[in-house]
Amino acid sequence: MSLPKPVLYPPFNIVRLSHVELAVTDLAKSRAFYVDTLGLQVTDETKDTIYLRALEERGHHCIVLRKCERAEARDLGFKVFDDEDLDKAAHFFKGKGLPVEWVERPYQSRTFRTHDPHGIPLEFYSKMERLPPIHQKYALYKGVKPLRIDHFNCFSPNVDESVAFYNEIGFRVTEYTEDAESGRLWAAWTHRKGGVHDIAFTNGRGPRLHHVAFWVPTPLNIIDLLDLMATTGWVANIERGPGRHGISNAFFLYVRDPDNHRIEIYCSDYQTVDPDLEPIRWDLKDPQRQTLWGAPAPRSWFEEGSFFADAKVRDPELAAQPIIAP
Amino acid sequence: MSLPKPVLYPPFNIVRLSHVELAVTDLAKSRAFYVDTLGLQVTDETKDTIYLRALEERGHHCIVLRKCERAEARDLGFKVFDDEDLDKAAHFFKGKGLPVEWVERPYQSRTFRTHDPHGIPLEFYSKMERLPPIHQKYALYKGVKPLRIDHFNCFSPNVDESVAFYNEIGFRVTEYTEDAESGRLWAAWTHRKGGVHDIAFTNGRGPRLHHVAFWVPTPLNIIDLLDLMATTGWVANIERGPGRHGISNAFFLYVRDPDNHRIEIYCSDYQTVDPDLEPIRWDLKDPQRQTLWGAPAPRSWFEEGSFFADAKVRDPELAAQPIIAP
Amino acid sequence: MSLPKPVLYPPFNIVRLSHVELAVTDLAKSRAFYVDTLGLQVTDETKDTIYLRALEERGHHCIVLRKCERAEARDLGFKVFDDEDLDKAAHFFKGKGLPVEWVERPYQSRTFRTHDPHGIPLEFYSKMERLPPIHQKYALYKGVKPLRIDHFNCFSPNVDESVAFYNEIGFRVTEYTEDAESGRLWAAWTHRKGGVHDIAFTNGRGPRLHHVAFWVPTPLNIIDLLDLMATTGWVANIERGPGRHGISNAFFLYVRDPDNHRIEIYCSDYQTVDPDLEPIRWDLKDPQRQTLWGAPAPRSWFEEGSFFADAKVRDPELAAQPIIAP
Amino acid sequence: MSLPKPVLYPPFNIVRLSHVELAVTDLAKSRAFYVDTLGLQVTDETKDTIYLRALEERGHHCIVLRKCERAEARDLGFKVFDDEDLDKAAHFFKGKGLPVEWVERPYQSRTFRTHDPHGIPLEFYSKMERLPPIHQKYALYKGVKPLRIDHFNCFSPNVDESVAFYNEIGFRVTEYTEDAESGRLWAAWTHRKGGVHDIAFTNGRGPRLHHVAFWVPTPLNIIDLLDLMATTGWVANIERGPGRHGISNAFFLYVRDPDNHRIEIYCSDYQTVDPDLEPIRWDLKDPQRQTLWGAPAPRSWFEEGSFFADAKVRDPELAAQPIIAP
Repeated sequence: MSLPKPVLYPPFNIVRLSHVELAVTDLAKSRAFYVDTLGLQVTDETKDTIYLRALEERGHHCIVLRKCERAEARDLGFKVFDDEDLDKAAHFFKGKGLPVEWVERPYQSRTFRTHDPHGIPLEFYSKMERLPPIHQKYALYKGVKPLRIDHFNCFSPNVDESVAFYNEIGFRVTEYTEDAESGRLWAAWTHRKGGVHDIAFTNGRGPRLHHVAFWVPTPLNIIDLLDLMATTGWVANIERGPGRHGISNAFFLYVRDPDNHRIEIYCSDYQTVDPDLEPIRWDLKDPQRQTLWGAPAPRSWFEEGSFFADAKVRDPELAAQPIIAP
Repeated sequence: MSLPKPVLYPPFNIVRLSHVELAVTDLAKSRAFYVDTLGLQVTDETKDTIYLRALEERGHHCIVLRKCERAEARDLGFKVFDDEDLDKAAHFFKGKGLPVEWVERPYQSRTFRTHDPHGIPLEFYSKMERLPPIHQKYALYKGVKPLRIDHFNCFSPNVDESVAFYNEIGFRVTEYTEDAESGRLWAAWTHRKGGVHDIAFTNGRGPRLHHVAFWVPTPLNIIDLLDLMATTGWVANIERGPGRHGISNAFFLYVRDPDNHRIEIYCSDYQTVDPDLEPIRWDLKDPQRQTLWGAPAPRSWFEEGSFFADAKVRDPELAAQPIIAP
Repeated sequence: MSLPKPVLYPPFNIVRLSHVELAVTDLAKSRAFYVDTLGLQVTDETKDTIYLRALEERGHHCIVLRKCERAEARDLGFKVFDDEDLDKAAHFFKGKGLPVEWVERPYQSRTFRTHDPHGIPLEFYSKMERLPPIHQKYALYKGVKPLRIDHFNCFSPNVDESVAFYNEIGFRVTEYTEDAESGRLWAAWTHRKGGVHDIAFTNGRGPRLHHVAFWVPTPLNIIDLLDLMATTGWVANIERGPGRHGISNAFFLYVRDPDNHRIEIYCSDYQTVDPDLEPIRWDLKDPQRQTLWGAPAPRSWFEEGSFFADAKVRDPELAAQPIIAP
Repeated sequence: MSLPKPVLYPPFNIVRLSHVELAVTDLAKSRAFYVDTLGLQVTDETKDTIYLRALEERGHHCIVLRKCERAEARDLGFKVFDDEDLDKAAHFFKGKGLPVEWVERPYQSRTFRTHDPHGIPLEFYSKMERLPPIHQKYALYKGVKPLRIDHFNCFSPNVDESVAFYNEIGFRVTEYTEDAESGRLWAAWTHRKGGVHDIAFTNGRGPRLHHVAFWVPTPLNIIDLLDLMATTGWVANIERGPGRHGISNAFFLYVRDPDNHRIEIYCSDYQTVDPDLEPIRWDLKDPQRQTLWGAPAPRSWFEEGSFFADAKVRDPELAAQPIIAP
């Protein structure tokens, strides 16, 4: 196996990842985490739902927290270029035999749901209600000063298949880890918006959501968040970091929300707009691909993730086995 | 007058600004500035030419320093998506009655020169020799740790006309300053690659190059450069900053090279990939648009710039008068 | 003239500068500045008085804001080693013919007031009420994250005389500016606590308080404060900076409170505990002593200051003329 | 047991820790580590010795690297206030029945060696050759930009005894860890110069040197060092961090030199000059005292250290057992 040839003229134009809905079991606790601790801004709030945006975003929401009985990740949302692209996208998914369900989403224009071949639920739209800029209202900056949603990362039982599918719809691989023995992909980072990734996949029981990432200005904001979490009752929610990934060169921190959804705080990737950008290959045996500085990640980071809504199984032991044994 | 309607499907696809050639009068002095002080990496060097790249770039050059009798700015280089776009671009410029000259450029694929309606020399190509990544070779990081070329900024005698032209070829306005009395544009920032700008225009005698900007990781790198320049004989080359622009929200520093070409060091802009991103309007009378923190810029910053090669006049007093009196 | 020989065994042991009382005309406005903007912590508050401490301080107060008809600076407070030193200090001042007035100060042990030979009001005590540490309560950190009061800076009409007096009571000069022509001191920085200064003097009509300084963790906190002040109605209160002083190597920012009292925000000085530390001499004609990076300070910075309580004259034109013409 | 009462008027005046000699087995490798990687400045160099200083130090050396057959730590050097204090110190140690040996030390005035009651070798002097300031020669700053030596940390088999001894000679405890069950000290941080520590002790087989620490400007310098070490062949020498200690509030990184001597890179402690500063107590069972953010330290950090010269045993299993079982 090897990387598929990039599709430079995809069947429809995805601009970027946009938002995700997280089902949470205690809305007040989640609010304390996302708003009071991370510093996301509330854009709407009802009895059972909180809409959030980050500081430089003008779209209405990047995270929707929904009160539910059971924690889970819901649709990964993507913004397409315009309504024509939306129809082309619907046509594409139908052509693949995947379900296309038109849904009402508050603050979004026409939206349809579908899922990818492994069952990851996806949602596409072209326009979301726009809000006035707040990136220069510095009195609002708190917590880790999150600027924008950056990417999704998912466990895939077959990363080669995931990459082949997302490549077909225009996601370009920027970096990848190969299992030299089998020639198979262990993990891959793919982008639409010109950074290292909009969505990444890593070999594991799945599909499950590994994490959602937010972009922040500098490593010092991440240190501020660590100090804050460590002294306000959230120390057990700090999972991994701070550190530098070899892959993507990101300065990172992983924290867990009150339902164990994993959030990455992130800065320092690089520009990838060149269509001839060469993907960077990492060997599965190179420990620096994970942490450039050498410190190992905890087991939880490799094993735990959020099940997606509609997932048929919810027992990690029963989820689809990864094609490469862990 | 008002902003033109964005052209979302332009006649050809420009990926990003790419490079510029600067004619310099003393190559050793320029090397001391760009390489030893700013920290750009030499990728090729001959008796009369130095090619440079920044740390995360894989294209061969972002700055070409050429030994000449007279300091001046030469072609502003742009990378197009592929060779088909290159031909479409040549066709477009010919259709406008602008000259298209195919030239040999070392390390670049087919390249043509032209100029914009005000006489700014431009150069287009689709492929440049690619070099191995060095962004994780941290021993190479020096000076201000420049990561990539970010944008050009030019004096234009008629910003409305400049914006109309670049809008037609797909540059989208992200922020602009309006003279409320005349309704004319005083300045505008336009992008292709998803940041605040690839090229910006400001009202003034021209066309002249106001500055070339480099992106760096954090404000602390800019403080490091200030300390270094201040104690290695370059203090007189520090022109303005550090500060925060209201427009673009950039943390900035302006320095002058040994021939007075102006270089901006820059961090902290924001993502602009949404096709429905609303341009931010600033009033010419709002002093915070220039410096959010209030400190005024020196006169030199408003008045001085580099003449472009082939410019018919080189006396600022004789250059085309700006349409709005300064 | 030249620097006096350091008195290594002074007549009494001053530990450090401690606090200052500022008379302010609108307590609510001052609170908005010191508490909501700078981020100092309120330790006590009455109808007409606010006591503040910085984040790593355990003494009860470093700034006392007192509602008054007329803005002015009051006693500069110093902490002595123990009560025996306090009595030695009182004895010393009496011996110099300076008044010693024992006063009641809330939260302080036995305290006396006096003034220096130029009329700067001083206050000495050995113990202040101690509060629990809050430096690891990171939820309290706001604004510029002030850690501790760092120093006082005063206009003196005769810096040689000021230095001679403070040298006698154990303040050691770390850096100084000399007028090469007259051989006189233009300015001097003197310390007790092991940093660059507890109190500094600069040639000017006086005595007046030039500024009170606070220590913060990194330059990024100062940039945060600039962004905050610039977007919450305080932009006109930003007076000078950010910049690096040649003298002291401090990264600085000067802001004005609602009554025009000047506050410096400061980081990056160096350790000065060695008794054989050589003072660093700067020439009055060296512009980098003021700003290493070359940018000039505004006139207000050289000319404006807070009158001290009990000052006989309050018209700058009538205050004691500096011995070196400005 | 409990903390001894602070001795505010000690028998002689130690100004600060000053320097240490490290016996190393490969001088070239050690130079690559301390000079090329950490960024310390060479002040003298012979065939078998390298003298180093940090960037804001004016004393001739803070580290002496000496080529030897066997790696070990040698005398911990302390600077006393003046020659009178030196004689008082010699008198004090003799009075305790500890050996006082006057030795020749290049670049130092009269110097004597002794050891503490557990056998830690110590060296005292009052004057060292002074060098011109280089803290504003920013072209010299490299690596982690070390500003000054900050403290020593030693394994002690009986921390109560160590603290009692150093307390008697004027070191004041700033923070300490207590084993609540036995009431014994597990660890203590003691200072002379006004920061959190000049020397600290932690329960363990000893005496051994746990680490020598250097002060740097900001956490970003530590991140720079991590990136540099990780990509220049030193990744295996990164032992622990970056992180925040609960105790001392330090932002830290621990690295090992080519002979496994441990170096801490450190910023963010606080001012401790108040004679009435209350020591902060930590419970041995509180994991946040070690790492505020919760991540555990590796075993090596608890178990490994450098033997001191003249130590009778060099087998950790045979070194004096700590009084509290690990």
